[in-house]
Parts: sequence; structure tokens; C-alpha cells
Amino acid sequence: MAREIGIGMIGCGVVGQGVLRLLHDNARSIEARLGGKLVVRRIAARDSGKARDPVVPLDLLTYDPQLVLEDPSVDVVVELVGGLEPAGSYVRQALERGQNVVTANKMLLAEHGHELIELAESRGVDLYFEAAVAGGVPIIRVLREALASDRILGLRGIVNGTSNYILSRMHDEGLGFADALAAAQAAGYAEADPTLDVGGGDAAHKLTILATLAYGARIASSQIPTEGITEIEAVDIEFARRFGYVIKLLAVARSLETADAASDRDHAPLDLRVHPALISERSVLASVSGALNAIYVQGEALGPCLLSGLGAGSLPTAVSVVSDLVDVGRNVFAGSRGRVPSRAFRGEHLVERPVRALGEHVGRYYLRFSVLDRPGVLARIAGALGAFDVSIEQMVQRARSTSGEAPVSVVMLTHAARERDVQAALGEIALLQHVVERTRMIRIEEV
Amino acid sequence: MAREIGIGMIGCGVVGQGVLRLLHDNARSIEARLGGKLVVRRIAARDSGKARDPVVPLDLLTYDPQLVLEDPSVDVVVELVGGLEPAGSYVRQALERGQNVVTANKMLLAEHGHELIELAESRGVDLYFEAAVAGGVPIIRVLREALASDRILGLRGIVNGTSNYILSRMHDEGLGFADALAAAQAAGYAEADPTLDVGGGDAAHKLTILATLAYGARIASSQIPTEGITEIEAVDIEFARRFGYVIKLLAVARSLETADAASDRDHAPLDLRVHPALISERSVLASVSGALNAIYVQGEALGPCLLSGLGAGSLPTAVSVVSDLVDVGRNVFAGSRGRVPSRAFRGEHLVERPVRALGEHVGRYYLRFSVLDRPGVLARIAGALGAFDVSIEQMVQRARSTSGEAPVSVVMLTHAARERDVQAALGEIALLQHVVERTRMIRIEEV
Repeated sequence: MAREIGIGMIGCGVVGQGVLRLLHDNARSIEARLGGKLVVRRIAARDSGKARDPVVPLDLLTYDPQLVLEDPSVDVVVELVGGLEPAGSYVRQALERGQNVVTANKMLLAEHGHELIELAESRGVDLYFEAAVAGGVPIIRVLREALASDRILGLRGIVNGTSNYILSRMHDEGLGFADALAAAQAAGYAEADPTLDVGGGDAAHKLTILATLAYGARIASSQIPTEGITEIEAVDIEFARRFGYVIKLLAVARSLETADAASDRDHAPLDLRVHPALISERSVLASVSGALNAIYVQGEALGPCLLSGLGAGSLPTAVSVVSDLVDVGRNVFAGSRGRVPSRAFRGEHLVERPVRALGEHVGRYYLRFSVLDRPGVLARIAGALGAFDVSIEQMVQRARSTSGEAPVSVVMLTHAARERDVQAALGEIALLQHVVERTRMIRIEEV
Repeated sequence: MAREIGIGMIGCGVVGQGVLRLLHDNARSIEARLGGKLVVRRIAARDSGKARDPVVPLDLLTYDPQLVLEDPSVDVVVELVGGLEPAGSYVRQALERGQNVVTANKMLLAEHGHELIELAESRGVDLYFEAAVAGGVPIIRVLREALASDRILGLRGIVNGTSNYILSRMHDEGLGFADALAAAQAAGYAEADPTLDVGGGDAAHKLTILATLAYGARIASSQIPTEGITEIEAVDIEFARRFGYVIKLLAVARSLETADAASDRDHAPLDLRVHPALISERSVLASVSGALNAIYVQGEALGPCLLSGLGAGSLPTAVSVVSDLVDVGRNVFAGSRGRVPSRAFRGEHLVERPVRALGEHVGRYYLRFSVLDRPGVLARIAGALGAFDVSIEQMVQRARSTSGEAPVSVVMLTHAARERDVQAALGEIALLQHVVERTRMIRIEEV
């Protein structure tokens, strides 16, 4: 008799139905790879009456997640509810019962990942989460296994498809943020409440997971300075283009180690941040548009490596979930659960690494000032910047106002400067006469 | 006492020294991931006296590979000799002795992979080869594990760095093939005898491996129609650019399955080929330049996914070798050798799939004719094409000859046509008066 891995699902929405679709359609090739069958035993869904993909086996549906968790024939619980609670309780309970867990829940992992992974490790079960970051792009496996021999110097990701879709529409069609957001919602790329996506929180959750795996460090998402794209205006996209840049929401992790042999590179501070950034239009990440995700990894030995693909959607995300199920199934059959540490590094080797304050960030900046077109105003702005050691590399002023009464945009790109100096200068500039709106500051990322 | 995995190396050239460098420099982080040490016990090198990276432990060096194979403290043999023999004998002997093997030897795997993998499976040991394809790009792991849940519809790779470097130089600087090859040799990107690289054989070896993993099929490299880049001329690059294309050496694998539910998709014919191709300059693969490698995978559920990175070089290749060592080490510690089938699919599930003859290929073509500029010659060419159902989409003639005595280039891009028809038409055209050289035909790949 063929060996079987029993699967219990909690949550049967868009991704869950994709999982069932793959388990059904690819059953034969999955068995040819795994040497056994992945068999769904029970599915908990809040609204089991709702119209569903015909692949959903109605006889396995229940309203009660407890029936999934208590089913002794379930070897792996797939948690696809999302959010902190009740999803966290389900995962905790499954692990405590000795069930393996596969989840796509980045928020839960970012907030409670260390606790849950340690619980899994203590029970000798697996907790897999490839689908939590960048949908179908196998970045978790790559960091955990393919790069197990290397040191990650840095990674830069486009990991929020909603924001990328919105910025692409703004870039391609000159839309403003609100119109592009509405278009994303109409196209199904943004939720009714898009705050987590466009505010950067979702990308920060994913970065928490990626940085933990890349650096074997205990990182909390609260440590990640996070800015979203809600304040990006069409005029910023336009100015960026004029200078040869595009604007992307980036998740950045870098090890701030020095080449100094005496320094302890494994405990060097980390540079972690999520924010919109100007990147060169010739950068590999510049061409990652629409709902695509991409992660650009810089390995010390590997050099640059790019992975890109669809970051969301029913089937691409389901590919990651079901490949995790195959992996867990292999561990069950081989008796090798816990074979690869969930955080890439074994728990006892995890380190604490300080996260550098954003004020210490050194980089170039895009600054857009709104000023009344009066003699001397630019000189005073330049003077304030210079007083804080911020020097100007390029400047452009938009069409002069005819009356002198309507504000005009002046954009400056700075040379590399320290962020706290830039902020201090902007504080002074805000007090200047004829500077009429808050200055827009966007970091420039060399990638 | 810390657990150890004993490593024996055969071959200590560029990649071997990179492996020793990583094992030395990253020993601590490797142990933190693996939960044990990777310890080199013995190294066989042909010229152990030659100046080497100081990281090579001279006391472990020997001239005699037999001493590595017979060392009972060696758990994993790393074969970095390359070529069919004696490398094949070393690998065979190691597997027969129950040692695991990690190799970067694509030729050996393409020619004798099935035999060696079956030997490994029968002995219950692992045979890993991430470094055999695309250096540091983890395409083997991705096909074998990350996409274990999906069906691969097709993949297109730039997997020979030497050819890509040469074509990039031709493209960027207008060099002819011979000059670009000389530049590649001077830069260390091409060997003294570049035949295997520029003739397409190396790419065909890699495609054999990739297609085997993607389709779970018994594929022999002799089944892969292979053309290299040696006949590409500067003028072809120039014409391609004029039409919005770049020329790349592509390795292509596609499943020629039909959507027809009654058809047996797991046994559908495969389209396998290695040849230079015109690809749109807007394609993701067009920007993969220089020594970079990339593989563009089309998963049925996943959609498009791109992986790119350095395809060769000491350290990038060593990353893949040492990550394989970590993986094998995990299997040794967990007692889970053979956990993932080397060919992605378990041996008993491998299928035979017919490879479609190139004459049956349907695609668009770039045709460059060298003709004397006489009335009626183009009409006769067009007529011959039309007689075989090959229709012309675009045509351009290079600057007319002033005398009418020097041949001029006429380039036509065809609509989709069947290759045997194109070949038949070209056979007729070769007999036409005023057609003075063999017509250059290059396939156009939609990617």
C-alpha cells in the first residue's frame, strides 16, 4: 500500500483552493517525486457553503478548526487563515500536538516566529513557510539551503506586489497614488483595506523573515524602520524618471560589517529598512514591474543573484505551500524532521545583532521642495543643507510660475549624506520663508 | 564532541581551491547551520607542487586519488576533475564503496548520469550536482524541491557563460566572433580549446540535466539538436538589433503537451534544443549579459520565474559545491540519505519521452541571404519561400552595392513556419543564380 501523508487545512480561501487544485491535478507527479501520497483528510472553512472551486471535496469540509487539529490522521496542518489570531492559536496547538505545520502567514511569523519555531523544534516537528515571502519565488529555500555555504552581504527585495503594481501604474500611465490604488483594487491586486500593503507593514513582515534567515539573527519586525508609498506623488515619479530613476518600494537588509579582520562580522550591526527608493532605471530591479516580486541577493562568494516571479495569487502561492508539504512529507518518511533549521541556523547559534538607527544611514537623497518663486529662496535652502554637510549633486526646477504666487517644485539630488544631517537640514528649511509645503524626501538606493 | 562529516577531494584546481576557501572562511556559519563540521580529510591533485591558494592544507595533498577513495574517514567524495575519464571511474568507485559524491561534472552527468544515479540509489548514498549547471545559480534545487508541486511547461536558459560573454562583446562593441573569442580568452572566460563552449556542447550537457529533472524523463545528450555560436557574424548582431532583437545562445526545453484532457501529458513529446536565437530586446533574458547565466522557468501553476547569477568562477561554483556538502551532511546526520531523488523523480517513475525532431519545429526565422544585386533575385527567393509555405513578415536590404558585383545582405524575418519547410526552401534558394553564399538561418525564440 502506498505511503500517505495526512493533510489538514485550516482556511480554504483563494490560496487554499489553489492548494487543493495542485494536490488534485498533480497528484501523480507529486507521488512520483515523494514516493507517497499527499492526502487531504479534513478542511476547516469559515463559510463552507460559499461557492467554491469544484476541486474542494465537500465531504471533508467543517466549520470547526478543532476537528482538523484533533484528527489523528493529520500529519501536517496547513494554516491559511492569516493574521495573528486565531491563526496563532491553531499553529501553536498543532505544534504542541506534534503535528507539522505549513503556513503562508508572514504576519504571524514576523511577530511570533521565534516562539513558534522554538516550539516546533522542542517538539521535533517541522514548521515550513516558503509561501510567506514572495509567493511562488523560492527565496526561503534558497537562503536556507542553496546559500548555506555563503555569507549574505545584503539583499534587496521587491516583496509587496500591491505596492509594486501601484507604482508601476503610476510610472507607466502618470496616475496619481489614489487613482493607481483604485485601479489595483479593481484589478484584484489590492484589498479593500490596503494599509498593510501600501503602508509598508507587509514588506516589513517579509523582511523580518528574510533577515532572520540570512543572518541567523533574532530580529523583530518592530526593529525595522518602515515607510510606505502613500505619499509618493505623480510628480515624484516624473522627476525621478528625468534623472534616470524609477521609484520602487524596497525591503533592504545589509550586514554592516567591515573588512577589518579584527572585527566580529557575525555580530556586526544590520541595516534593515522598508521604504520607497529611487533606483537606477538600468538596475535589474527596475524592470520588475506589476505584480512581480524579486529578491536580489548579494553573496560574499556567490556575487549577485536574482530571483523573480509572481509574488501572490492562488496558484503561485499554492506552489510554495505544496512544495513545503512534499518537503515535510519527505521528512516524515525519512524520519528526518527538523533536518533543516526553520531559521536556516540552529537555535543555539542564533545571534543578537543591533539594527542601525535610520539616522545613521548614509546615502544619497531625492529632495523635492515646494517654494514660492522668490529671489534668494534657493540660496537659503542650499545654505541650510550645506550647514549640515549635505551637498547637492544635481538640481532641477520645474516650470517657473508666471505669477510668482503658486508654489513651484525644486528637486535636488544630494551626494551621500548622513540621514540625521539631512533631517536636521530639512527641519531648518521648513522654517524658511517661501518654503510652503513639507519637503518630500526619498532615499536613493544604489542597486 | 562536535559531529563531523569527512570530505575527500579529487581535483584541486580553480573550483577546488574555492571550495577549500569557503570551508575555511565560513566554517563557523556552516557549523551553525549544519550542526556539525565539514572536515577535509584528503585532497588528490595532479600537480600538488603548483602554487596554490594558501588555504590549501598541504599536509592533506596527495597525487593518488586512490588514497582519497580508500580513506575510511571520508564520507563524501568531491569530484572536481571534470571530463568523462578518469572522473567517471572515481565517482563510480566512490559510490560502490558507499561514499556520497558531490560533483560539478556536467559532461559526466549528461553522458552517464542515469547509470551513476542508479548506482547511488542502489547503494543508498547521495549524488549531488548543483554546481554542474549555472555555477552559483541554484536551479537544480529549485527544480527538484521548490517546484516539486508544479508541472514545468518549459524552461529557457542562458547556461554557457563563455558564449554569452562573446555574444555580449559582439553586441556591445561590434566585434566579430574571432575577436570576441580572443577577448574572452584574454579575460579568462574561454579556454584555450573553446569548442565545447562555443559549439553548444556544454549547454547541451546542462540541458540534458535540466530536462531530466524538469520532466522526470530519461534523456540522453545525444538526443539534443545542438548548434553553437561560431557562425554568428557581426552583421547578424547588427541586423538583429535593427529589428529589436539580441542574439543569445539558448538552451530550451518544452513539453509539447496539448490541453486536450484525453492526452497523456506525462508522455508528451519534448522540444529540446540548443542554438543561438534572436530574442526580443525587451525579454528578461536579453538583459542577462556577460558571464551571467539565467534560467527562465515557466511553471503551469507558478507562471514565469527567473533565476540569474554568475554561471562560473571559483567562488560562485564553490558555493553550490559546499551547499551540496551541507545537504549531504544533513542526510548523514539525519540518516536520510536518498531523501530527495537525484533526478527529482524516483527512479521507478521515470518515463521515456520522445524528443521532437528539429524539422518539426515551428517558429519564426531570421534568414540572411547574400546575393548579387540583380533584378528579380528577391522575387525568386520570395517565390521559393512561398512555395514551401514560408511567408515573409519583414525584409531589409543592406546598402546597395554600387557596382552590382559585390554581394549584398538581404535579411528576412519569417512568420511562423515549419523548420523542414524552411530548410527545403533554403535548399532551393542555394541553387538560384546570384545567391552567392550559404544563407544564414537563425531561429527566433519568443520568450
